[in-house]
Amino acid sequence: MPVNLHAPDPASLHAVPGVRLGVTMAGIRKADRRDLSVIELVEGSSVAGVFTSNRFCAAPVQLCRQHLAAGHAIRAILVNTGNANAGTGADGLARAQQSCEALAGLMGVRSEQILPFSTGVIMETLPVDRIIAGLPAAIAALSADAWGQAALGIMTTDTIPKAASRQIQIQGQTVTLTGISKGAGMIRPNMATMLGYVATDANINPSLMQALVTEAADASFNRITIDGDTSTNDSFVLIATHQAKHARIESLDSAEGQALRAALIELSQQLAQAIVRDGEGATKFITIVVEGGRSEAECKQAAYCIAHSPLVKTAFFASDPNLGRILAAVGYAGIDDLDQTLIDMHLDEVLVVQAGGRHPAYREEDGSRVMKQAEITVRVSLHRGAASATVWTCDLSHDYVSINADYRS
Amino acid sequence: MPVNLHAPDPASLHAVPGVRLGVTMAGIRKADRRDLSVIELVEGSSVAGVFTSNRFCAAPVQLCRQHLAAGHAIRAILVNTGNANAGTGADGLARAQQSCEALAGLMGVRSEQILPFSTGVIMETLPVDRIIAGLPAAIAALSADAWGQAALGIMTTDTIPKAASRQIQIQGQTVTLTGISKGAGMIRPNMATMLGYVATDANINPSLMQALVTEAADASFNRITIDGDTSTNDSFVLIATHQAKHARIESLDSAEGQALRAALIELSQQLAQAIVRDGEGATKFITIVVEGGRSEAECKQAAYCIAHSPLVKTAFFASDPNLGRILAAVGYAGIDDLDQTLIDMHLDEVLVVQAGGRHPAYREEDGSRVMKQAEITVRVSLHRGAASATVWTCDLSHDYVSINADYRS
Repeated sequence: MPVNLHAPDPASLHAVPGVRLGVTMAGIRKADRRDLSVIELVEGSSVAGVFTSNRFCAAPVQLCRQHLAAGHAIRAILVNTGNANAGTGADGLARAQQSCEALAGLMGVRSEQILPFSTGVIMETLPVDRIIAGLPAAIAALSADAWGQAALGIMTTDTIPKAASRQIQIQGQTVTLTGISKGAGMIRPNMATMLGYVATDANINPSLMQALVTEAADASFNRITIDGDTSTNDSFVLIATHQAKHARIESLDSAEGQALRAALIELSQQLAQAIVRDGEGATKFITIVVEGGRSEAECKQAAYCIAHSPLVKTAFFASDPNLGRILAAVGYAGIDDLDQTLIDMHLDEVLVVQAGGRHPAYREEDGSRVMKQAEITVRVSLHRGAASATVWTCDLSHDYVSINADYRS
Repeated sequence: MPVNLHAPDPASLHAVPGVRLGVTMAGIRKADRRDLSVIELVEGSSVAGVFTSNRFCAAPVQLCRQHLAAGHAIRAILVNTGNANAGTGADGLARAQQSCEALAGLMGVRSEQILPFSTGVIMETLPVDRIIAGLPAAIAALSADAWGQAALGIMTTDTIPKAASRQIQIQGQTVTLTGISKGAGMIRPNMATMLGYVATDANINPSLMQALVTEAADASFNRITIDGDTSTNDSFVLIATHQAKHARIESLDSAEGQALRAALIELSQQLAQAIVRDGEGATKFITIVVEGGRSEAECKQAAYCIAHSPLVKTAFFASDPNLGRILAAVGYAGIDDLDQTLIDMHLDEVLVVQAGGRHPAYREEDGSRVMKQAEITVRVSLHRGAASATVWTCDLSHDYVSINADYRS
């Protein structure tokens, strides 16, 4: 039951000059599911990515890092669902390599020019034969207008495909940014998230790409959590085909660089929030703002403690303003010299806590009213500095337990 | 549905010379519930405690710390359920103080000789008038044989009272240790847990008490987690009445000191594990051992990441050997230079993962067989050192969500 999230209108997804997408059903885990996607990039494109910090990072993540670090000109992205190819040891690495070789052979490029991605069950053997058998169909399907198809093709426990598009003007030229994302469980990205891709035709100096993708991830995918579980396969990739006709952007601080950055962050936030809105079992979309901290780090710490507390999340599910649970989470966030007597808390516009205690004018019916909404903002003010941080999360419902007790069956 | 946990046989709970307990129904939150307990200590008793590290620690926890730090001779412990008196600001502190004064007045001691404890809903005003009105009945009920009553008297969402007893011989004298504990949610003690009390008549140098209670808490209550939420009210208290006739224990490293320590740790572990067995919605009791680490700290980190992962916990609930989720949790535990290719994992005696990948001989039916048990041990070997750590936890079930979506209603 996604929260205020609907499948994107295909007409709203602008093609990005230089990018074609093809999706097929390769029967990787189940029959009759779109589970194999190829994203082909025109020669001369730039690609930068950020990947999971999980030390059990998947075999394809290891190959992506290698191919990008070596500076190979990336020509295609290959994504399979149904199998994460993580916790699979040396054999998993060999299989990921084989899938790159197969696609490279069909495209007439080198295997180092392919970035492979996998998502699905961990610790199962990748059925690479099925991937190889499916590639010709995926290539035959390549089209510039298949962003909606690709959004469907990378879904696992998602119930709604996630895609969005922006167009901005740079020097009178239209520049497009279009992206897709997936993920509904094992979501607490730490560097990036469970598969997000944004492509743009912006003409940007390739040396700026890594800073841009890192900044966008930090402002979006690195601010969401569903269950606190950082995946083995998180990846967020930014593609620039440089096809737009404006003069090349040489600095992110120029007017053009700022316009591109703003559009990219906005798009990335929309894609990241879509993951939370479609979180496993989610019935509420919660924005948590912790402000007045000495550092952004301590604000994030407190925000994540609130966002991960099963007691807080079940209270949101129940629309129960049992808000002391939020204070408890702030209290155990590891801010050692935190003074509880300074802390205020708002639920939307309702002042619940002042100076560490229940505000005398707070009435439970005001808390109840806000808790019943589908979208809620919790704002905690630490009153010890000027830093702040925002995290987006969802509630914990019976459906979360059902989905994760049944996922593989 | 507690896991292999039954109400203690009252005959198994030995009285501790010098300790009397009295319980009554004070109507603090609901009528007809035992919700107010007094534990009276003979003059000359020693008391030491460890308390929550939550910065939103409750008003009674603040008073306990003050009374113990000032070295007052503690004569009674006062416990109410139904209200945590946390997140209540200066008013909460004044109300906790009033409850101490009332009990001290009835007992003819000073209010600093009382340790107050509260457990229940956070951020609600303590109905101190009801506590004061209930005190005479609790005092009238005082009896050396009321440990079972007190175990009932401190319960909140617990379904089974938790109490245990040990007797050891020191220099031919019988020494008794009897304890009670409570807690089923908001359980990830960090220094101690949500209300545990152990009393002994051992004659021990009072200066050894703090080291003893800290060591016992670290080996027991600080090794359990239900939901990862460190409470505002966690407290573990050790009482020694010194009534046993053996010569005073002057060192924990003496034979007598070691015997006492061993019995205390065993008793504390039983009481701590009882909390997990009766965890909110628990259907499985899980022991997580991480070994082969460079430090105990990194082993604990990994063990807690496994124990807190909602994905791991729901897989246990479903008896689904979706064991890659455990590897993912180890991977995001923040051990920066962890080498995944060294890691092995056992489920009970079944070798599931070797060298970071699925063991070739592992068969899913073996994993399924173990996952169906009510008690399961996960053992992760990091192969990078000689340290290890053990954590006890439970699964995450539909009942957990139901209980916490309904707790206040």
